[in-house]
Amino acid sequence: MEKYGTQGQPNPRRDSPPVTYQNRIYNFAAGPATLPVPVLEQMQRDLVALPGVGMSILEISHRSKTFEAILAETEADIRALAAVPSNYRVLFLPGGASLQFSMVPMNFLASSGTADYIDGGSWAEKAIKEAKKVGTVNVAASTKGEGYTRIPSQADLKLTPGAAYVHITSNNTIEGTEYKELPDVGATPLVSDTSSDMFSRPLEVSRHALIYAGAQKNMGPAGVTIVIIRDDLVSRSAGRKASLPTMMNYAVHAESGSLYNTPPTFAIYAVGLVMKWLAGQGGLAAIAKANERKAGKVYAEIDRTGFFRGTVRKEHRSLMNITFRLPSEDLERTFIKGATAAGLDGLEGHRSVGGIRASLYNAFPEAGADELVRFMREFERSHG
Amino acid sequence: MEKYGTQGQPNPRRDSPPVTYQNRIYNFAAGPATLPVPVLEQMQRDLVALPGVGMSILEISHRSKTFEAILAETEADIRALAAVPSNYRVLFLPGGASLQFSMVPMNFLASSGTADYIDGGSWAEKAIKEAKKVGTVNVAASTKGEGYTRIPSQADLKLTPGAAYVHITSNNTIEGTEYKELPDVGATPLVSDTSSDMFSRPLEVSRHALIYAGAQKNMGPAGVTIVIIRDDLVSRSAGRKASLPTMMNYAVHAESGSLYNTPPTFAIYAVGLVMKWLAGQGGLAAIAKANERKAGKVYAEIDRTGFFRGTVRKEHRSLMNITFRLPSEDLERTFIKGATAAGLDGLEGHRSVGGIRASLYNAFPEAGADELVRFMREFERSHG
Repeated sequence: MEKYGTQGQPNPRRDSPPVTYQNRIYNFAAGPATLPVPVLEQMQRDLVALPGVGMSILEISHRSKTFEAILAETEADIRALAAVPSNYRVLFLPGGASLQFSMVPMNFLASSGTADYIDGGSWAEKAIKEAKKVGTVNVAASTKGEGYTRIPSQADLKLTPGAAYVHITSNNTIEGTEYKELPDVGATPLVSDTSSDMFSRPLEVSRHALIYAGAQKNMGPAGVTIVIIRDDLVSRSAGRKASLPTMMNYAVHAESGSLYNTPPTFAIYAVGLVMKWLAGQGGLAAIAKANERKAGKVYAEIDRTGFFRGTVRKEHRSLMNITFRLPSEDLERTFIKGATAAGLDGLEGHRSVGGIRASLYNAFPEAGADELVRFMREFERSHG
Repeated sequence: MEKYGTQGQPNPRRDSPPVTYQNRIYNFAAGPATLPVPVLEQMQRDLVALPGVGMSILEISHRSKTFEAILAETEADIRALAAVPSNYRVLFLPGGASLQFSMVPMNFLASSGTADYIDGGSWAEKAIKEAKKVGTVNVAASTKGEGYTRIPSQADLKLTPGAAYVHITSNNTIEGTEYKELPDVGATPLVSDTSSDMFSRPLEVSRHALIYAGAQKNMGPAGVTIVIIRDDLVSRSAGRKASLPTMMNYAVHAESGSLYNTPPTFAIYAVGLVMKWLAGQGGLAAIAKANERKAGKVYAEIDRTGFFRGTVRKEHRSLMNITFRLPSEDLERTFIKGATAAGLDGLEGHRSVGGIRASLYNAFPEAGADELVRFMREFERSHG
């Protein structure tokens, strides 16, 4: 495992100052995704032995005071950043959003009830598929017939009175759309898969009953899932302890403070460092502004002449995943190849939809958006 | 998060040569546990940007060629190390052994069948509890009444003809016992939880149908579970795709090569490095010899005078987790406190049983066992 490169020579350094690593490239991938360089540097410093501990973060017991402090501090930082009310628990779980697709209905969709799902993209479809294995699902709205080019509107919704919950996907990683305003679901608990936009902007926690997200877009490396769950749902979950697999029960994880079994300690530590970095950036309102600025530059270039075409309705454009097409698939291939060679990596659209996708998560540097715009303009000049 | 230390001053360097880090201590904890220093060093070097890739291992896409190569190489190294026959799949899953406790019965214990569980320790009890939620369980033998001081013998077993499977725990992390010889279960599929001894000694893969282990004892950091599963069990699992949560289905993970969803990429990379290190140590037979030598030194000291008392039957003593008592609980507290101050960390017995536990996994240096023996002898001299 001496050589990892699959892209020929290391690319020239293109990161924003302060210059530290000559060989980092711009990573536009949809996740796992770019992390803040200062976070990587601190991990690197601490990797062989945490200061004053004499062991690596990779080695310490999850029952040690050191790890307990890391876990508590990470939770406290998340609470402060996202203004999480005191009647919500913050959990760190394994299995990604895909396991949440099952855990949510297994805990809250009684065999006699109905859960409403709003289908705005491919990941919502997967969530629906898992829920249907557990109980009755009402697809309250779907934009699948329109190629998921927009978020379902309030007027589209056919909600079930007394539904167990309403499930949404706040940002559609594959299609490139994002809720700009939460749907009004009345008193029904709102469950949101925020895997690709959690902590990229202020989060109205109190309008949700449960929010979940894999960490690997905006919050850290792959391997941990953050769940923010309201106390009344924890109580409902407690009633299913005897029947559900223990690892699939929210109440178990809430009562044990995410230490029912060995949690992914390193991934939690990494999330903790990213939260510190995020606070240092000014918090969620500030990072949202930065994300608007970065995405705005790329969308402006897409709209400049018509050579590039955005794939979704403008008012639902995602700040995280920018999807667009070129005049032909041949040109798209040429574009991706040229971009990769120029150190702009991960621009292929999801294999299910094709085209181009630029993911600009929190830690993605603005200089990378500028480079992409420059590359797009040059590409249009030479191929337009 | 600037200060992590909870133990006062950094301890003087006590690792075996070559001396690299002045502040590493000896970590006797039961897991997450000590990793090889050269592995930590390589991770540290590669953390900000993998050579030739320009991204951190923490950032690369799980669909990238780079990660695919890491995954394939890690699997190949495991296959070579453990001589895994070609009719077995190697999977990398989330959720730890605790999730396997549920996945095994959910995939293989039909509502009409019976699964046999051999109860040799606290973790077997947990596995049994989860299986009972799924179907009929026969506890084929239990040494609980004897305080789990031995592994159930072949003569103890009351096996069910035609059972769905027989489940064992190969090493009891809490109690400190270990199977020295696999039970004879005839043609019934043998399932083994090897969480605390996988790859600490040669593994008779072909005598098992399914073997699982969290990585955090002998193979890497917390966050990934290694499953070695025979093809016929994959096929049986495939029949349950429509009903089981997708993430809980072995066939799904086998068919997607552990890439159904975003896997814990960093943890898999770390396991890959540990496997290279293990091969460099001479493989499983060589590491078993080293483990016997390390544990042998501590057991010899336990048996030297009677001041220390081993807690389990000698012929079932674990090479991984060495459990012993002192003449009083007061002395045990003094022992642990003094050891911690001397840079011998994590020696508290599991909170459910008390006493002392020294975990000497693969990467634990022999010099640490020597230090422990020295400390024990000195402690006996001053307190005996």
